[in-house]
Amino acid sequence: MPNDLMLRARISPKGHLDLLSRQEVTALLQVNSGPLARIFRNCSLAVLNHDEYQIDDDQALLERYPDYEVQVIQDERGIKLELRNAPAAAFVDGELIRGINEHLFSVLRDLVYIDSGTARQFDLKSSDGITNAVFRILRNARVLKAGLEPRLVVCWGGHSISCEEYDYSKEVGYQLGLRDMDICTGCGAGAMKGPMKGAAVAHAKQRNSCGQYLGITEPGIIASESPNPIVADLVIMPDIEKRLESFVRLGHAIIVFPGGAGTMEETLYILGVLLDPANARIPLPLVLTGPASAQDHFALMDRFLTETLGPKVKNLYRIIIDDPEEVARYVVKGVREVRDYRRATEDAFYFNWHLRIPLDLQLPFAPTHENMRTLRLTKDRPVNELAGDLRRAFSGIVSGNVKASGLKAIAEQGPFELQGDISIMKPMDELLAAFVAKQRMKLPSANKQYTPCYKLVGA
Amino acid sequence: MPNDLMLRARISPKGHLDLLSRQEVTALLQVNSGPLARIFRNCSLAVLNHDEYQIDDDQALLERYPDYEVQVIQDERGIKLELRNAPAAAFVDGELIRGINEHLFSVLRDLVYIDSGTARQFDLKSSDGITNAVFRILRNARVLKAGLEPRLVVCWGGHSISCEEYDYSKEVGYQLGLRDMDICTGCGAGAMKGPMKGAAVAHAKQRNSCGQYLGITEPGIIASESPNPIVADLVIMPDIEKRLESFVRLGHAIIVFPGGAGTMEETLYILGVLLDPANARIPLPLVLTGPASAQDHFALMDRFLTETLGPKVKNLYRIIIDDPEEVARYVVKGVREVRDYRRATEDAFYFNWHLRIPLDLQLPFAPTHENMRTLRLTKDRPVNELAGDLRRAFSGIVSGNVKASGLKAIAEQGPFELQGDISIMKPMDELLAAFVAKQRMKLPSANKQYTPCYKLVGA
Amino acid sequence: MPNDLMLRARISPKGHLDLLSRQEVTALLQVNSGPLARIFRNCSLAVLNHDEYQIDDDQALLERYPDYEVQVIQDERGIKLELRNAPAAAFVDGELIRGINEHLFSVLRDLVYIDSGTARQFDLKSSDGITNAVFRILRNARVLKAGLEPRLVVCWGGHSISCEEYDYSKEVGYQLGLRDMDICTGCGAGAMKGPMKGAAVAHAKQRNSCGQYLGITEPGIIASESPNPIVADLVIMPDIEKRLESFVRLGHAIIVFPGGAGTMEETLYILGVLLDPANARIPLPLVLTGPASAQDHFALMDRFLTETLGPKVKNLYRIIIDDPEEVARYVVKGVREVRDYRRATEDAFYFNWHLRIPLDLQLPFAPTHENMRTLRLTKDRPVNELAGDLRRAFSGIVSGNVKASGLKAIAEQGPFELQGDISIMKPMDELLAAFVAKQRMKLPSANKQYTPCYKLVGA
Amino acid sequence: MPNDLMLRARISPKGHLDLLSRQEVTALLQVNSGPLARIFRNCSLAVLNHDEYQIDDDQALLERYPDYEVQVIQDERGIKLELRNAPAAAFVDGELIRGINEHLFSVLRDLVYIDSGTARQFDLKSSDGITNAVFRILRNARVLKAGLEPRLVVCWGGHSISCEEYDYSKEVGYQLGLRDMDICTGCGAGAMKGPMKGAAVAHAKQRNSCGQYLGITEPGIIASESPNPIVADLVIMPDIEKRLESFVRLGHAIIVFPGGAGTMEETLYILGVLLDPANARIPLPLVLTGPASAQDHFALMDRFLTETLGPKVKNLYRIIIDDPEEVARYVVKGVREVRDYRRATEDAFYFNWHLRIPLDLQLPFAPTHENMRTLRLTKDRPVNELAGDLRRAFSGIVSGNVKASGLKAIAEQGPFELQGDISIMKPMDELLAAFVAKQRMKLPSANKQYTPCYKLVGA
Repeated sequence: MPNDLMLRARISPKGHLDLLSRQEVTALLQVNSGPLARIFRNCSLAVLNHDEYQIDDDQALLERYPDYEVQVIQDERGIKLELRNAPAAAFVDGELIRGINEHLFSVLRDLVYIDSGTARQFDLKSSDGITNAVFRILRNARVLKAGLEPRLVVCWGGHSISCEEYDYSKEVGYQLGLRDMDICTGCGAGAMKGPMKGAAVAHAKQRNSCGQYLGITEPGIIASESPNPIVADLVIMPDIEKRLESFVRLGHAIIVFPGGAGTMEETLYILGVLLDPANARIPLPLVLTGPASAQDHFALMDRFLTETLGPKVKNLYRIIIDDPEEVARYVVKGVREVRDYRRATEDAFYFNWHLRIPLDLQLPFAPTHENMRTLRLTKDRPVNELAGDLRRAFSGIVSGNVKASGLKAIAEQGPFELQGDISIMKPMDELLAAFVAKQRMKLPSANKQYTPCYKLVGA
Repeated sequence: MPNDLMLRARISPKGHLDLLSRQEVTALLQVNSGPLARIFRNCSLAVLNHDEYQIDDDQALLERYPDYEVQVIQDERGIKLELRNAPAAAFVDGELIRGINEHLFSVLRDLVYIDSGTARQFDLKSSDGITNAVFRILRNARVLKAGLEPRLVVCWGGHSISCEEYDYSKEVGYQLGLRDMDICTGCGAGAMKGPMKGAAVAHAKQRNSCGQYLGITEPGIIASESPNPIVADLVIMPDIEKRLESFVRLGHAIIVFPGGAGTMEETLYILGVLLDPANARIPLPLVLTGPASAQDHFALMDRFLTETLGPKVKNLYRIIIDDPEEVARYVVKGVREVRDYRRATEDAFYFNWHLRIPLDLQLPFAPTHENMRTLRLTKDRPVNELAGDLRRAFSGIVSGNVKASGLKAIAEQGPFELQGDISIMKPMDELLAAFVAKQRMKLPSANKQYTPCYKLVGA
Repeated sequence: MPNDLMLRARISPKGHLDLLSRQEVTALLQVNSGPLARIFRNCSLAVLNHDEYQIDDDQALLERYPDYEVQVIQDERGIKLELRNAPAAAFVDGELIRGINEHLFSVLRDLVYIDSGTARQFDLKSSDGITNAVFRILRNARVLKAGLEPRLVVCWGGHSISCEEYDYSKEVGYQLGLRDMDICTGCGAGAMKGPMKGAAVAHAKQRNSCGQYLGITEPGIIASESPNPIVADLVIMPDIEKRLESFVRLGHAIIVFPGGAGTMEETLYILGVLLDPANARIPLPLVLTGPASAQDHFALMDRFLTETLGPKVKNLYRIIIDDPEEVARYVVKGVREVRDYRRATEDAFYFNWHLRIPLDLQLPFAPTHENMRTLRLTKDRPVNELAGDLRRAFSGIVSGNVKASGLKAIAEQGPFELQGDISIMKPMDELLAAFVAKQRMKLPSANKQYTPCYKLVGA
Repeated sequence: MPNDLMLRARISPKGHLDLLSRQEVTALLQVNSGPLARIFRNCSLAVLNHDEYQIDDDQALLERYPDYEVQVIQDERGIKLELRNAPAAAFVDGELIRGINEHLFSVLRDLVYIDSGTARQFDLKSSDGITNAVFRILRNARVLKAGLEPRLVVCWGGHSISCEEYDYSKEVGYQLGLRDMDICTGCGAGAMKGPMKGAAVAHAKQRNSCGQYLGITEPGIIASESPNPIVADLVIMPDIEKRLESFVRLGHAIIVFPGGAGTMEETLYILGVLLDPANARIPLPLVLTGPASAQDHFALMDRFLTETLGPKVKNLYRIIIDDPEEVARYVVKGVREVRDYRRATEDAFYFNWHLRIPLDLQLPFAPTHENMRTLRLTKDRPVNELAGDLRRAFSGIVSGNVKASGLKAIAEQGPFELQGDISIMKPMDELLAAFVAKQRMKLPSANKQYTPCYKLVGA
């Protein structure tokens, strides 16, 4: 329905950023010209371009609105945002949709908070320092609630899944919502949207008016996964690793829907954490689930995980096929155990302080040839560390297959060289081939046959 | 997902019926055995059988749950309901969905209130008395809100429309919701559900947490049009005429989506009211709308209305094809005029006291051969009265085509005899034939050719 | 501060009477000229004349504002009240204080509800019928709250007590409020105001924002005991007996502060109820309390009660002198027992249905010579019945000493003749003499010696 | 009532300090042993010792509870406070009064925020930096409300005033509350308590449930002016100058009740600000008011101010004697002008950013002989600067008359030497003598005649 008219508007904050000191106003004004300018323009455009137009490709979005501008405007009472040439779909009769209005200020709030925090207070070199930063950003965004019983279910999965898989994720969200669970996702489309929609309907039926719909994203991903304005709380974390840490410290259960290499990375991340002996006794229900058509997909994942990380890894997750009610019942039971454990150990309900996340899972990983070569995909080391390196390997392969920077590096320097045991590399090969075959992983050009972007050395 | 397990539960009222005198408890207990017993059983079963299983045929529903029982139970503090062999889909892990719990007590509340009111306070013979009863029932159900700006849009249309038409009604609801309008419907499926769903999503995006989703039904229709539990306020009016009066006195605008003979009846009802010279200056926006595929349908309706009621009737409605945003903008503009008019004339926002509804539109119409024969479908009388008789004719034809009682009467006594001008009867014939052709009106047996259940006499 | 300017205003209802049918509006308009007109004028004047000017004498109040007028005005949306020559103290810069605005409509609400209820629904001849009417009036006034733990403490006592006694009642209210108890009184001055004031301060300290301050009055008494606008919920019961029944069915504990013959009546009423064998097992904490200076007063009451009703009556109350904290602790403990009992017997928390109140305590008593003569103050009958007749005797004596009608009757027909045992009449004589000596009972002329308005016959 | 039992309790935060990072918990634990320990002990004891025992002398309070201890306790979910030997009056049946519980955590919140802010973020050397710190502390305490119309009236005056003056301040608060004004004071007794009490009663009558009762204190004064727990928002500013800046930036009007040298200091502070030419156009209503008995007091103040600061100073304040309604009407009118001005200049309602407060009024003043000698009380300089030095002179004189440190300095070094014009020193002499005579200024020993603690040099 919405056409492509470009609109101009001046909007005010509400709830956040509405009580500012003069110094803070000055800092916010620097967003207009400083290093945050480009990132704020891109993130705000992604928010304005909400779910009506789902564009998979962030470049395409930026190109579609080349004249879009956003400016922080001073106003004696604080600040306003001035938008020019903004996507018309964000407006109703000239008025910005209130949910989008909120999200724009959420973006500004988080970018500026992270920027000033990084400069002054956050110690991003130590494990505790990073966890502290994650906590502070979440609290500043007011998504932590003291005194609430555990009920937040993190849902992962692909953003371009099949209709059947999407409907399945919606039904799972519905069954969770009927049981008063709340939803946290990466806030894009597909498996990140379905559970929220389902839960919203169920919450309405249960007359539950305080359901939480939390979306956590980061600047590198927001453009390709625009937050649906039904996301009631939007948080922009600084990078993918802090986003992942947010998920596992906030969530009282995690559900993995079908997805591709990105979902595989997330799964290896949480397994890397749970396999850490320090976390052996900390309950965190983890479910892999999808409709009947996804049975093979999860069987494949299951085989890959047990072959590389050993058969004990099966104890850490449960696969449920085509049974949303069972998923919900299993999650509710698991969340109750989480509650009892937190109570017994006096840990907070709103943040999983006890979970140990080693520094190397917290530090950003750049998939360069050098970094890929030094991964050690071998079975002679602790499985949790192996899981961490597998996550990085997947990260690099995704980049080498898909991302502009990765493709360029491969073209210039040849395939990544990976060192590892054949008993690990082979299952990985098979898994990726299946992802390609089932179109769960997009390749630069669909016509070409899949040529691996890595090779084994000295296995 | 839900299976057919029959469940048993004991539930408590909340908000309504939670402060009862002993006399009231005694009156409620009589529901178990008195004349209300059967009607309460049927209505409550309809509520329990919410949208998961949409059964078009009320008989089928009753047959599906032959062992279902509901009892009002005394409890020193008041009452409870005891359900046995209830549809499992109404429960989550053994707990009744809270929205359904509310609806069960809404049903009980209204049945008992109407019953005692009819016995003691309501004068159902006079026009003012009936309007008073309608008002009292609505107020007792707490759906009237003092001090709220006009924003309630009544949506009419078929309950078994096409997917495309359903999606269109949802999009209209979405555009209305984005503009903070609320929705009132007959609370069944199809065009009665789509606008509510759309509005709910839009209200969430607009952070509007006080949207109203009002469903008004009556015992004769609830079983075939089970209220979706997202309907936040459910009201059971005593009969179809009081349900229609509720719609037009509550609504600040009316939208007619595609539908069959039932929707035609509703349209003729409101036109009968608006054509009354006493109502000439009272604004009430009326829109007929549908997707592009419904263009012919509305062209046909338009032709029928102008041919029978005269060309001036066109001033009372506007047809908008395939443009939900325009529908919403038009409605919002019209509602603003309603507000200004009410303010100028000091009429209440929450109830359209000024609108004159003549007694013959208020009194229940029984489509017997005798009553059908005395209708006067002629052009020598005021158009508003003609519209009223046309409504009754449609009511009878629907009954003769579809309803058990009507079919039986036709089989025994032959077709209804209708007196009227050929210039009215012919367009009616064409319209009904088109409804049958397009499957907008269901017939007892789909295979047979359509044989009119009426014939013209002495035209 | 407020001067005697007479003001004129037009005010709107809020919360109550804001959703009216046309029939109800018509009924309300009849208040202007019908039999309710005088009573509404007097009650509304009492409300307007709130605590700034405490006038003990209702005649004086009426004389002070001879030109005061109140009219119910029709308005398409419902009704308004038009006040003329109203006491200026009820206004702030020309605007009526909102609490007083509420109270005016509370008065109108109750008078009209009682009037139409009496005409149509209430059976005021039977015990159950009267209890039902009491319940309906209270529920219509929305002072009953489902789902609240027991916490309502009824406070009785004189309205013209000493400063020391007033401060003591405030301190008791404060200690009750610190323990989250709510207060219900007759809503006049003295012991009816002190506990509310104290509780309000304590509730603020405890951050308890839902404290209830309930005032229950009746047309015969409101003029001499104007409700303080801090009374958040005001109810006008039809007569003294229904007011007393409200107190004992609503209250979870009762405190008696020092007072005169009126307080004695109240005390004999509750003792008459509690002495009924049918109520033997129903807990209802009853405390008689005052500062050290009131020790003699309560010793006297104690002696009178035991001498007339027997020593077992002492089990029904506890006397606590000069210890507000102990009063509060004792009440809290007793209220907890009330809660447990109600739970065990499934009685409502918000209304004591179980308590038996015999019809003769419910029916209004007119203190005529004839009625007084037929009282039987003898020890050969059940003590609960004796307590009932003692209450009536006190009622008559108060009337014969003080009220215009009683004084006139005595002047014309000589003293009331009371039949009773000397062992009852003598203590009564002593008690009344002490009340006169301590100025707890006002006499027509302060100078004269006290001459009893009754004599014993055939003892 | 409360006895002197010492109690022990462990209490949890609510609303504030309930979402803490591990680093913050560590910082809070350092309060137990670090430099904040003593100050936290004293402030928390002052809060516990709420209005039941108003002890004028902070030393006496500390001596009365020598064994009182408070500890911050770690708890995996955050922190708790453990109290030992705390004043029993703060407890009800072993439970801490909830308002006091809140205040304890307010104290902890502000002390730690100021401490860490001073170390890291606040620039307390520059005028903007100090204003920024004041704003940040107030915002962190959540007492600033975006979107509220101006309505905060700051009330100054003595804490040991006469009963008549106290009742008058209560009546002024009552009249302000009737007009929906909120109250901000220094949160001690006397003129700091009366207006809040009066406003609370009026807010209840006006059914205004969101009245603000804001108390702003500082560590040096809290012990002698314990906050009444009715103070709903308590803020501890770091020193007297920041407390004064808070008052004038938060308040939309200021009322000065009778008081002594301290009140004089406050009055000279606001006059020093308003006399600054930069503030010439900024409206801020300032009223000096008291009962009839205070007429001479204000006449004296008026004379002193005009003789020292020139007759134009009279334009900045209005004196109203014995007319609470007129005070309230005047304030409401002035606050409306403040609102219009802020709107016109786009200044915030919740913080007066526009008001220029020069750095020398912001920097803490230590009344040493050296600092007193360098004051220049002469008429050859701008009046706003003179007002500033007069404020400091009063500050020193109070210290020299009363405070331990000041008395010691005088005893050792003789009287302060003040340089100034005789036309300033003489009125000051007379004013102080009157304060002594009227017991508005306490002296070390009441028996001795007043000997000035200063002398004039080189006038």
